[in-house]
Amino acid sequence: MTNSPSDPAIDAQRFATLVHEGLVIPPSFRWRVLRLARGLAEVELEDDPAFVRPGGTISGPTLFTLADLTLWAAVLSVIGPQPLAVTAEMAIHFLRRPKPDALVARCEVLKAGRRLVHGDVRIVSRGEPERVVCHATGSYAVPDDGPAVRSSAP
Amino acid sequence: MTNSPSDPAIDAQRFATLVHEGLVIPPSFRWRVLRLARGLAEVELEDDPAFVRPGGTISGPTLFTLADLTLWAAVLSVIGPQPLAVTAEMAIHFLRRPKPDALVARCEVLKAGRRLVHGDVRIVSRGEPERVVCHATGSYAVPDDGPAVRSSAP
Amino acid sequence: MTNSPSDPAIDAQRFATLVHEGLVIPPSFRWRVLRLARGLAEVELEDDPAFVRPGGTISGPTLFTLADLTLWAAVLSVIGPQPLAVTAEMAIHFLRRPKPDALVARCEVLKAGRRLVHGDVRIVSRGEPERVVCHATGSYAVPDDGPAVRSSAP
Amino acid sequence: MTNSPSDPAIDAQRFATLVHEGLVIPPSFRWRVLRLARGLAEVELEDDPAFVRPGGTISGPTLFTLADLTLWAAVLSVIGPQPLAVTAEMAIHFLRRPKPDALVARCEVLKAGRRLVHGDVRIVSRGEPERVVCHATGSYAVPDDGPAVRSSAP
Repeated sequence: MTNSPSDPAIDAQRFATLVHEGLVIPPSFRWRVLRLARGLAEVELEDDPAFVRPGGTISGPTLFTLADLTLWAAVLSVIGPQPLAVTAEMAIHFLRRPKPDALVARCEVLKAGRRLVHGDVRIVSRGEPERVVCHATGSYAVPDDGPAVRSSAP
Repeated sequence: MTNSPSDPAIDAQRFATLVHEGLVIPPSFRWRVLRLARGLAEVELEDDPAFVRPGGTISGPTLFTLADLTLWAAVLSVIGPQPLAVTAEMAIHFLRRPKPDALVARCEVLKAGRRLVHGDVRIVSRGEPERVVCHATGSYAVPDDGPAVRSSAP
Repeated sequence: MTNSPSDPAIDAQRFATLVHEGLVIPPSFRWRVLRLARGLAEVELEDDPAFVRPGGTISGPTLFTLADLTLWAAVLSVIGPQPLAVTAEMAIHFLRRPKPDALVARCEVLKAGRRLVHGDVRIVSRGEPERVVCHATGSYAVPDDGPAVRSSAP
Repeated sequence: MTNSPSDPAIDAQRFATLVHEGLVIPPSFRWRVLRLARGLAEVELEDDPAFVRPGGTISGPTLFTLADLTLWAAVLSVIGPQPLAVTAEMAIHFLRRPKPDALVARCEVLKAGRRLVHGDVRIVSRGEPERVVCHATGSYAVPDDGPAVRSSAP
């Protein structure tokens, strides 16, 4: 049994374990990986009253956390399990005020370099795939002692 | 009794009330305003084990939340209490891995426009003011029905 | 004869005229619109020795200029001819060093609001559509006296 | 004769030579270094009709070029002459429409790492130091074979 070039370098179960061990997500954050392929991740976040801010919309930090988590999943799908990979920078645009509902974030890796892995994240409300509510682009820094990125990376 | 041109358009107590009513911050987030002047805000965040991620550093979402909160304080110091002012966009750079310790964020408003208020946020570990661990720049959108920005704004 | 909802609010010829009248592009910048639909623009930039910097790659300002021009085309495809629409902000990531060759930029509008129009721009070398060399996301500010954005906008 | 810790790792004359050899700046771009210290650069750009766009303001690409050039100067003031150092990313905010006049850009390096050097750039019109017209933050990537950053770096 061999791996296909599009197999992710980490599976959803292993990723969830890394996140839970890492304690980086608030307990109220009920999320799950919908899809994980090499260079592509989709994560769903359940609705929660704790996320809602004045005006009945989901808070900026909640959207950032979801974007960062989804970017991390997509990055690890290329470089493999790397608890020490950290966000280098992110530019996040809040385009629409999402109503209180589940969110779906989708990240595509646009460049997997030896030092930085860069991706594009788009967040929509569940059931409204055409209306991007949040658009984030950013990079994770790959630790020096990390495994080399394989040549099949994007 | 009159206001001086450098008086903030909201005081720290009123700002804290807005934040607590708005429920936008996780309960583990113990913060306080150190300083609030017109166009300038300093916010301190107490250390908490929940913020620490693998490698012994403070998580990206925690730093974003602190940056966003401090930007909000600085924005409201110019436009006054506006529960519906929301972040339009933010570019955030994670420059150093802060050790688990209290953080101090300082935001300076660089432009207060009729539609957008833009600021620069720098976060340091308490006691190390010269080492910026996180640098964020971004804008809040001013609601249409908000009070006009006074002419003494930056 | 009526317009279809996907017709751009400006055509390529009119856009080129606006750019040439506006003098915003250096004379060495030989570009043309490859495609213009509502909320979508593709612009090609011819190779030129003046763009090449040390190491044999195309300069950052050249890539920014192309990204900004393509974003402008996409924005005007939604709001119509608006010489006074200006860039509010842009986050630009230089992912790979493009070799000296023609470039193709493609911009998709993700949100057309009353005040801001936001898009995503990806630049590739001609003939290598899978390798994004530059990724830019940003917004144009719509002038107050501009025509209202039509309801068919993205 | 020894160097002081605040001496720049490159002087203004050498920097100008690098730029002119690199051909990265359009010929109409008449600029000069006003100040260069370790981790700090100030660059002035003369007014030129070619920079002015509709509405009588200076074009976005001109402001980006000036920001990028000033960031490069500040980066090289820390790491020394490095023709192959390239911009990794930049987030640029256009805050006010500068009138057609000379511009002054000031860049402060906030972090000089082994891989990335990050700075903050603020551009004002000459004679109006309090009104920031453009705010840019970004990073240059340090080539692998570059000289090690000295310990006195910011």
